[in-house]
Amino acid sequence: MATIIDGKKVAEEVLAECSREIEELKVHGITPGLAVVLVGEDPASQVYVNSKVRKCAELGIHSEKVVLSKDASQDEVLATVKRLNEDAAIHGILVQSPPPSQIDEEEIIRTIDPAKDVDGFHPENVAKLALEDPSGFVPCTPAGCMRLLEASGVKTSGADAVVVGRSMIVGKPMALLLMARGSDATVTVAHSRTEDLAEVCRRGDIIVAAVGIPEFIKKDFVKQGATIIDVGINRVEDPAAKRGYRLCGDVDYKDVFEKAGAITPVPGGVGPMTIAMLMKNTIKAAQAL
Amino acid sequence: MATIIDGKKVAEEVLAECSREIEELKVHGITPGLAVVLVGEDPASQVYVNSKVRKCAELGIHSEKVVLSKDASQDEVLATVKRLNEDAAIHGILVQSPPPSQIDEEEIIRTIDPAKDVDGFHPENVAKLALEDPSGFVPCTPAGCMRLLEASGVKTSGADAVVVGRSMIVGKPMALLLMARGSDATVTVAHSRTEDLAEVCRRGDIIVAAVGIPEFIKKDFVKQGATIIDVGINRVEDPAAKRGYRLCGDVDYKDVFEKAGAITPVPGGVGPMTIAMLMKNTIKAAQAL
Repeated sequence: MATIIDGKKVAEEVLAECSREIEELKVHGITPGLAVVLVGEDPASQVYVNSKVRKCAELGIHSEKVVLSKDASQDEVLATVKRLNEDAAIHGILVQSPPPSQIDEEEIIRTIDPAKDVDGFHPENVAKLALEDPSGFVPCTPAGCMRLLEASGVKTSGADAVVVGRSMIVGKPMALLLMARGSDATVTVAHSRTEDLAEVCRRGDIIVAAVGIPEFIKKDFVKQGATIIDVGINRVEDPAAKRGYRLCGDVDYKDVFEKAGAITPVPGGVGPMTIAMLMKNTIKAAQAL
Repeated sequence: MATIIDGKKVAEEVLAECSREIEELKVHGITPGLAVVLVGEDPASQVYVNSKVRKCAELGIHSEKVVLSKDASQDEVLATVKRLNEDAAIHGILVQSPPPSQIDEEEIIRTIDPAKDVDGFHPENVAKLALEDPSGFVPCTPAGCMRLLEASGVKTSGADAVVVGRSMIVGKPMALLLMARGSDATVTVAHSRTEDLAEVCRRGDIIVAAVGIPEFIKKDFVKQGATIIDVGINRVEDPAAKRGYRLCGDVDYKDVFEKAGAITPVPGGVGPMTIAMLMKNTIKAAQAL
């Protein structure tokens, strides 16, 4: 039976660190500030944005929520980002993804001051990650996954790690973090074109699942005793559930549970870590001043 | 018995393409120009720099060789790079690696105009590679390896590719190229901390060896029929050789030859491709004007 990797607990530890760091900054007259820009009214995005703002309030991080209409032009979003780049009270800026289709998200990201890019998506931070330059911002979700591995005492050095998914939000940065000096895992990146995904996953002492398909990773994908980090958060219909749906990951938790050595639940695994690492990045941005 | 992947022949094809592209540019009044900066008198670096300059001359690319003394200061090198950044006759700039120890190579690379960074080492080009943005410059050696695979008809999509080495010159960019959309390989990056390197390599339908250890990859590292790209160029003492040494790769060519499906020789494999891709990048820089 697997050990459950308690993301809520580890996130609490990270947030306790954050509180201490914020106190330290306040001694120097600095209050970290995060601006969250939301374009449009996507309900899921609203939930994410509100939870980020709430977490800031809990910790004593100044936050500014900027809501632009769903018809906002590229120039309006760019002007907002530029204003926030210049705002000394704001140390971190994120534009909630995905924006409406008229918005060129890549241009928005390139316009954020890299020193305020707490999502870690600006090309300058992407390069720093690849170049193992610790001065950059690491995207929050993979940073959270690394922290979960560390907190669970999972040895990455020499371990076979399989990352399923090759996005720039999770898969590629996760692979770069795992293969970096100090982590030293042997990293395989698998994806939709991988021929025998189950066989490739079974090589993994560590599996990081970021495919976006509910309960895709089954027992036969898992080596006995492997550590499983489930990045997926999917809604699946469930008539038995109060809301008519339930949340699940990219891993079939019940199916895999007996075989895995350790596993993150969904919810309560990677999710709480992502927001905790966003707070951590915002503080890092404020500390760098 | 393995098919020999003839790097000289494929490089000739690339250079023939280059010649056509140069003719086309000349119609528009543009002569591509490459500046090669050498700091100090390292004999191997001199050989590399001279062969780059000679290849330019053969193709009709304008070249400028700048030789600074081995005691040159950081400021002198930076001033040279800045002058070349401004020089309209120069489209590509490279500073031969490694510079003497008083030089901060990373700062030099960051100072090169990314639009002239034909080595592909500037953070902006590193990010473009990770982000699969084709407007950037890909480092010459991994670009050459990809071209060799293509020219040999090796299918990368769905293939298991093992990259041995995690440097930013070869290993990481090679992994990013192989996993990118369109190439679609399942990529494993192995390195000095990998526990059972032979076993990991045996998974590879494709092995790219960039470890810098002479004849390190033996027969038992190779799956029957695998394609092997040997990036290593090592000098090993050989009393029987006229010069007292011979060149060899990171792969034990003779040992592996019967088992591999296809293999690049050393010399005559990846080496000629690296310089051909440098010419190609210089032309790309001139075309982008």
